Amino acid sequence: MSKAGCDEDGGSISEENPEKSPRDKPPGAPTTGPGWTKVSCPCCVSERVEPLVLVKLGEKVRPETKRWLLKLIGTPQKDGGASLLAHPGEDATGDIIMVSAPRCTLLQATEELGLCKTYNTGEMETFSYDDRDNFRHSDNMEIFLTLAERQYIVKYELEGLRAQRDVRIPGLADKYTLQHRDNIWQKMSSAGVVVDTFPLHNRVKLKELSKSWYSGNQLSQPLDSVNAYFGSAVGFYFSFLDFYTWSLLPPAMLGLSITYFSSEVQKEAVEAVAGSQAEIYNEESGLAVSGHMIQAVFSMLWSTVFMELWKRRSSSMSYRWGTLHLAERFAEPRPGFHGDLGLNPVTGRVEPLFPEWQRDLRTALVSIPVVGLFLGMVVLGMLCFYWGENQVMWLHEEWDSMVSQTLLYAPSVLHIVYTNVLATVYKTVAQSLTEFENHREESAFQNHLTAKVLVFTFFNYFAVLFHIAFVKQDVPLLRKRLASLLVVTQLVNQVTEVVVPFLVDRFVSAPHRKESEDDPEEDKFRNQITLPVFPGLFAEYIELLVQFGYLSLFSCVYPLTAVLLLINNVTEIRSDAYKICKLFRKSFSAPVANMGVWQIAFEILSFVAVMSNCWLLTLSPQLQRLHHEGHHVLIIVKVIVAALIPDEPDWIRKKKAHMQYTSMQALRQQNLPSEEP
Amino acid sequence: MSKAGCDEDGGSISEENPEKSPRDKPPGAPTTGPGWTKVSCPCCVSERVEPLVLVKLGEKVRPETKRWLLKLIGTPQKDGGASLLAHPGEDATGDIIMVSAPRCTLLQATEELGLCKTYNTGEMETFSYDDRDNFRHSDNMEIFLTLAERQYIVKYELEGLRAQRDVRIPGLADKYTLQHRDNIWQKMSSAGVVVDTFPLHNRVKLKELSKSWYSGNQLSQPLDSVNAYFGSAVGFYFSFLDFYTWSLLPPAMLGLSITYFSSEVQKEAVEAVAGSQAEIYNEESGLAVSGHMIQAVFSMLWSTVFMELWKRRSSSMSYRWGTLHLAERFAEPRPGFHGDLGLNPVTGRVEPLFPEWQRDLRTALVSIPVVGLFLGMVVLGMLCFYWGENQVMWLHEEWDSMVSQTLLYAPSVLHIVYTNVLATVYKTVAQSLTEFENHREESAFQNHLTAKVLVFTFFNYFAVLFHIAFVKQDVPLLRKRLASLLVVTQLVNQVTEVVVPFLVDRFVSAPHRKESEDDPEEDKFRNQITLPVFPGLFAEYIELLVQFGYLSLFSCVYPLTAVLLLINNVTEIRSDAYKICKLFRKSFSAPVANMGVWQIAFEILSFVAVMSNCWLLTLSPQLQRLHHEGHHVLIIVKVIVAALIPDEPDWIRKKKAHMQYTSMQALRQQNLPSEEP
Repeated sequence: MSKAGCDEDGGSISEENPEKSPRDKPPGAPTTGPGWTKVSCPCCVSERVEPLVLVKLGEKVRPETKRWLLKLIGTPQKDGGASLLAHPGEDATGDIIMVSAPRCTLLQATEELGLCKTYNTGEMETFSYDDRDNFRHSDNMEIFLTLAERQYIVKYELEGLRAQRDVRIPGLADKYTLQHRDNIWQKMSSAGVVVDTFPLHNRVKLKELSKSWYSGNQLSQPLDSVNAYFGSAVGFYFSFLDFYTWSLLPPAMLGLSITYFSSEVQKEAVEAVAGSQAEIYNEESGLAVSGHMIQAVFSMLWSTVFMELWKRRSSSMSYRWGTLHLAERFAEPRPGFHGDLGLNPVTGRVEPLFPEWQRDLRTALVSIPVVGLFLGMVVLGMLCFYWGENQVMWLHEEWDSMVSQTLLYAPSVLHIVYTNVLATVYKTVAQSLTEFENHREESAFQNHLTAKVLVFTFFNYFAVLFHIAFVKQDVPLLRKRLASLLVVTQLVNQVTEVVVPFLVDRFVSAPHRKESEDDPEEDKFRNQITLPVFPGLFAEYIELLVQFGYLSLFSCVYPLTAVLLLINNVTEIRSDAYKICKLFRKSFSAPVANMGVWQIAFEILSFVAVMSNCWLLTLSPQLQRLHHEGHHVLIIVKVIVAALIPDEPDWIRKKKAHMQYTSMQALRQQNLPSEEP
Repeated sequence: MSKAGCDEDGGSISEENPEKSPRDKPPGAPTTGPGWTKVSCPCCVSERVEPLVLVKLGEKVRPETKRWLLKLIGTPQKDGGASLLAHPGEDATGDIIMVSAPRCTLLQATEELGLCKTYNTGEMETFSYDDRDNFRHSDNMEIFLTLAERQYIVKYELEGLRAQRDVRIPGLADKYTLQHRDNIWQKMSSAGVVVDTFPLHNRVKLKELSKSWYSGNQLSQPLDSVNAYFGSAVGFYFSFLDFYTWSLLPPAMLGLSITYFSSEVQKEAVEAVAGSQAEIYNEESGLAVSGHMIQAVFSMLWSTVFMELWKRRSSSMSYRWGTLHLAERFAEPRPGFHGDLGLNPVTGRVEPLFPEWQRDLRTALVSIPVVGLFLGMVVLGMLCFYWGENQVMWLHEEWDSMVSQTLLYAPSVLHIVYTNVLATVYKTVAQSLTEFENHREESAFQNHLTAKVLVFTFFNYFAVLFHIAFVKQDVPLLRKRLASLLVVTQLVNQVTEVVVPFLVDRFVSAPHRKESEDDPEEDKFRNQITLPVFPGLFAEYIELLVQFGYLSLFSCVYPLTAVLLLINNVTEIRSDAYKICKLFRKSFSAPVANMGVWQIAFEILSFVAVMSNCWLLTLSPQLQRLHHEGHHVLIIVKVIVAALIPDEPDWIRKKKAHMQYTSMQALRQQNLPSEEP
C-alpha cells in the first residue's frame, strides 16, 4: 500500500476546510496525511491515505478552479460535497487531483449500493451502516472493501455530486454557473475542467495478481483476486471464460471421436480445411449422417445444460462477491437521466421521474425500427457483395486481363469498407438511441446499449453463414467457411488484441514513460495517464458469443469446432489476463450480480441453436423423415431440461429466503411510514 | 350476523377456564356470550360471537373428552391451546362443537399468514400485529377480515395444535396418549373424536351473494364478494372462468366468419356434426386451407396473449385480495410433514427438517416412474380397445347375429370400466406418492397432488384424440370426434354436475332437514352436516383445461370450437355459482396468490398447441412446403410475444418494489439477529 505523497503545497486547501464543518471535527485533530484535505469526522482519521482515483484536469484550468474543486471533494455530503479526500498532486497548479475516501464515506456508500459483507456470524448479509460494528473487518477498509469497490465508490460519489443551490465556479466563464440540482461532474467535464477520471493501479497488488494468474502454468484462475482488483464485471467475464473453456471438453472429445471413427467425416473436414471445393455432399455415408445427428443432439443438450449450470455458478459467485442484493433501483437515478421532478413511488424521494410506458413507446417506435433498418443495410450490403462478385467474375471471364484480375478483389474490399463504416455509424446511433430511451439505472442503460450493438455485431458476423446455410443450402461451403473462420479469425483476434497493443506499448509508449524506483509516487500515477483506456469487455464477450454461435448453431456440420475453440480459449485466458493487467489503464467497474445482457444473449443463442441444428439435419435426405418428430421432441426436451435444473443452488435459495424472512420480521416490528424516514 | 346460541349448559366449561389463565383476565370481566368459552384477553371481549366453524364429534365421544377439547380450544396459545372460542352446541353431551375466534387470535394469524390489508394511507401493506392500529377497520373483524379468512384462521389454529408435553386425553384409551409435539387434531381424527370440521354458511350473506351472482341477468360476477365469502381459491377460479369466457369472443367470431365465408369448411363441419364419414379430405379447397391456416396462427397468438393478460389480471386480483405476499414458507410446516428436528436455516426455529435433494430423489425415482407406468396403462388400454373393436367388427361380419351385435359394445364397455378403475386406483396412488414426497407447505402438497392427477386425467381425455391426429393422421375423423366431444361431454357435464345434485338435494336430502325460522341456530348449523362435501375445484378446472385443449390444440380442424365453448361457459358460470352456493357445504379455502399449478398447465398447453397446430397444418398437402419456415417463425413469435407482455402490470411492480424498499430500510435500521427474536 502506498503512502500519500509528501508535498506540502496543498496546505492552503486543508486550511480552508475547518471553516466548512467545524462542528464535526474537534479542534486540533490530526490531519490524515500531508497534502490531503482533512476528513470531516474524527473516526476516519488515519495515518495512511491510499490514493484511489486520479482526476486529470484540463491544461488551461486556473488554480482557483482547482482549489474550488479540491474543496468541494473534501466537503461533507450534507453540505453538498463528496465527503472524499483530495490531494493536489505535485503542487496546486498541476493538472491532476488524486482522490481517496475516508472510512465513513466508504461505509455509507456500501450501504447505499446494497453490497453484502461478512457478518460476525460468518454469513453474508446486506451491509447496514448502523450495524457496522457487527460486520467483520469493518474497521479496516482495505480488507473490508475490495480495491475495485473503493475506487467505484469514489467515482460514484464524484459523479453523484449535485449543486445544492446556484453557484458560480471561480475561474470559469458565467455560462458554466451551476444551477440547483445540476450534476457538477458532468458540468465540469463539459467545461473542460475535468478531462479524465480513472482508478489507479496498485503496483504491489497487480504484481501479486499477475503472478498467480498468467505467469505460471496454473490451471485455475484466481477469480476472487480478479474480482477484488478489477471488480465483479471483470470477475464474471473471467469466471465465464473459465467455466466455458472447461465445458468445451465434452464436445471436443465427442468431436474428436466422431472425426476419428467416421473416416468420411474426417476426410471432409480435412478437405474443408484444405479449401478443396469437391462436391462430397451427396456421397455422405450413413455413418457420417449418424455422426452429424449425434453431434446435433449432443450440442443441443450440452448448450442447455451448460447455460443452466453456469447460472447456478453465477449466482454462487454473486453471493461470494456480495452483489446478490444490489440496491441500484433504490438509489439516485444515473446522472444522464432526466424527467419531471416528482415523488418516486418506490422510495418516496423527490427525483426526476419518467413514465415507463413512454420509454416502451420510444423503444418500440424509434429504437427497434432504426436497429431493423441497420440490419437491413447489412443484408443489402451482403446481397450487393454477391451481385458484385458475380459481375466481376463474369467480367474477368470476358476480359481476362490484369485489370480484371485486380477488379476481382474490388467487391470484397468495398464490402469490408462498407461494413466498417456502417458499424462505426451504428455505434454512434446506438448510443444516441439508448440515451433517448432515458433509462433510470446505469445498468439498464448499459444493458440496452450493449444489446443494440450486440445484435448488430452478431448479425454482421453471421449474415453470410446464415445465407449459405438457409438460402444457398450449401453444406460443404458452410463447412469450409466455418473452418476458415475458426482458424483465421481467431488468429487475427489474438494478434490484434494482444500482439499489437504489446508492441505499441513496448516500443511506442513505454520509452516516453520510463520510470525509476526513485520517482515520486505522483509521477508513477501520472504515468498511468499515458496508458490507453481499457476498451471494455464488449469485444471479449462478443468473441465468446460468436464462438458459441459457431459451436451451437453449426457444430453438426463441422465436428472439430469444439476442439479448435478449446485450444483458442486456453490461450485466450492468458492473453486476456495479460492485456487487462499490463496494457491498459485500470477501469471503473460497477458491482454487478451477473453477466447482464450477455447471459440472455447466450440463452437466446442456445434456443435458436435447436432450430438451426434441426434444419441443418434435414439437408441430409436420409434424415428428412425423422425431422418432424425429432424437431418437436428436441425443443420439448430442451425446455424440460432447462426447467428441471434450478437456476440457483439450494443453499442460495435458502439464504435468499432467510434474507426475506429477516427483512419481513424487521418490517413488522418497525413499521416504517411509507415515506422516507 | 347470528347471535351466539342461548344454551347455558356450557357454563361448566366456562367455569373451568379462569383457572387456566387467571393472569390474562381481570376478575369479573364480562364473558363474550352465553355458552362460549371465555376469551383470554380483555380487548377481545365482545357482545356478539359469530359461530365460524362446526366440529362434528364421533357418536361415542364421552362428555369428559368433549369438555377437554372445549377447554383446549379456549386455552391461550402460549399454554398450548388454540386461543379460540368454543361453544358446546345444545348441551355438553351433544356431538358438535361450534368454534369462533377472538380478535387478537385473528389479528395474530393474519400477520402469520402474511396477508395484506388496507393501511391508513389507503395502500395495501403486509399486516403487522404491532402496527394494527394503523390498519383500517382493525377494530371490527367482520369488515377487516373476510368470512373465508376468519374461517380459514380457525382451521389453521385447530390443525396447528401441538402437544406441549405428554398428555393423556380424558375418556380415551391409553394408545391415544399425546406425545410431545404430536399434532393434536390429527390424533383426534384418528381416534374418532373429531369426525369432521367444516366452516358454516352465513345465510344472510349467502342470500345477498346469490342475488348478485346468478339470480338475475348480470353480465359480470361479484368477484370480490365471492372471494370474501368463499375465499381466494374459489375467487380465482371464477375470475379465470370470467376472463376466459370473455376472451373466447374473438376466436368465436373468427370461427363463425371462417365457417360463413368458406362454404367448404361449413359443409365439412355440418357433415362432421351429422356424423357422415364421407371422405372429403382430399377435396379441400384452397379457401378451406387458408381458413385453417388463419385459424391456426390466430389461435396460437390468441392463446399466448390470453395467458399473458390473465397473468396480469391475476396479479392485480392478488393485490386486491391481499394475498401478494403470503408467508406460508416462513410459517410452521403442514401437519403431515415429518423429518428430523433441526434449526430451520430460513426462520431459525426448531422444526422438522427434510432435505430438498431427498425429495427430488423420491420424485425422480418413485413418483415419475409410477406416473409414467399409469400413463402407459392408459395407452395400453386404448390399444386393447382398438384391437378389441377390430376383433368384434370382424366377428360381427362373420356371424351377423344378435350375440355379435351385442358384442359390438363390449370393447367400449370394457374400456370405460377399465379407465374408471384405473382412475380410481390412480387417485389413491397419487395421494400416497405426494405424501411420500413429504412437502413442507400445504400449497406445495396440493400443487404436486393436483399436478399428478391432472396429467393423468388430461392424458386420459386426449390419448384418443392424439392417436387419431398423430398416428392415424385422419383429419375428418378428428373433426367428427371433436365435434361430438364438444357437444356431448359438455351436455353430460352440465347434467351430472348440476341437475343430479339438484335433484338429490331437492328430493332425497331436503325432506330430512326441513327447517323453520323458529328452530334454534344450532339446529340450522347442524343441518349443514347433511349437505354433501364440496368436491373441490379440480373437476371445474380440468373441464376448462380440456376445453382449452380442444380449442388450442385442434381448433384449426374445427373452427366452431370457440362458439360452442362460449355458449357452454355462459351457462357454466351460473351453474357453477348455483352449485357452490346451494348444493354443498361451505369449504375451507387457504388464501392463495394465483391459480397455482393450473396456471402452469394452461401455459404448457398453449406451448404444445403451437406444435400441434403446425403438425395438423402439414397434413394438408398444399401447406407442406410452408411448414419448415412457418414452424420456426411461429415458435419464435410466441416466445417474443410472451416475453414482451410483462407478467405484472406496472403499478404492481412499483408496489412490490416499494414493499421491498421499506423492508430493506427496516432491516437496516433494526438489525435483527439472525435467530428468531
